[in-house]
Amino acid sequence: MPSFQRHVFVCINERAADHPKGSCKARGGVEVRDKLKAELAARGVSKIVRANNAGCLDQCECGVSVVVYPEQVWYGNVTVDDIPELIDKHLIGGEVVDRLLMKNQPHLGEQRQFPKLDTGKPK
Amino acid sequence: MPSFQRHVFVCINERAADHPKGSCKARGGVEVRDKLKAELAARGVSKIVRANNAGCLDQCECGVSVVVYPEQVWYGNVTVDDIPELIDKHLIGGEVVDRLLMKNQPHLGEQRQFPKLDTGKPK
Repeated sequence: MPSFQRHVFVCINERAADHPKGSCKARGGVEVRDKLKAELAARGVSKIVRANNAGCLDQCECGVSVVVYPEQVWYGNVTVDDIPELIDKHLIGGEVVDRLLMKNQPHLGEQRQFPKLDTGKPK
Repeated sequence: MPSFQRHVFVCINERAADHPKGSCKARGGVEVRDKLKAELAARGVSKIVRANNAGCLDQCECGVSVVVYPEQVWYGNVTVDDIPELIDKHLIGGEVVDRLLMKNQPHLGEQRQFPKLDTGKPK
């Protein structure tokens, strides 16, 4: 039953080492994805928040690029060290992590709070 | 400016040829993604509908698996031949393609119509 409350895609696109755009893989995309998966599992929410790698998200200059659906919130320059905050604040708490937000996301308007994760546990 | 009206992820995960689950790559995931990208470009909507490959979406038994965000509509057993209908009906027209829908998507409820693509052109 595919029904994720949040689905997070991490770019792991690779370009030639001398490509002017750089690439998310060279900037640690695989490590970011692995850390995300491990930390989601550690919190017991892997069944309702899915992390996946993705091909080029077309935001190479902001890599490692991460996008969170269904709200389509784009994060840039994400590192392994950012993952606990990203999970606890946004993926579980529903609140956008401002400091990692890519610029110019008109579809968001002023919205910075989305539904908290429903873990089915008493609050 | 990352602001897609629809973002489509196609699983191209590969498993060993004798893996009991099979894999989306073995079932044509790469070809489905390539066709999707080509047909979106041909219709001039690549800037507002993005297609990406993704790692394992955990629906191997329904591969090639495709998920459309922000509405999180899951399609299974998608082939290259299904792409024109998938684009014209759903990605542009907003209407779910029932015959390709994976079973049990409780987050959809009875909803089968989503916003039409806004191409900025007169209707």
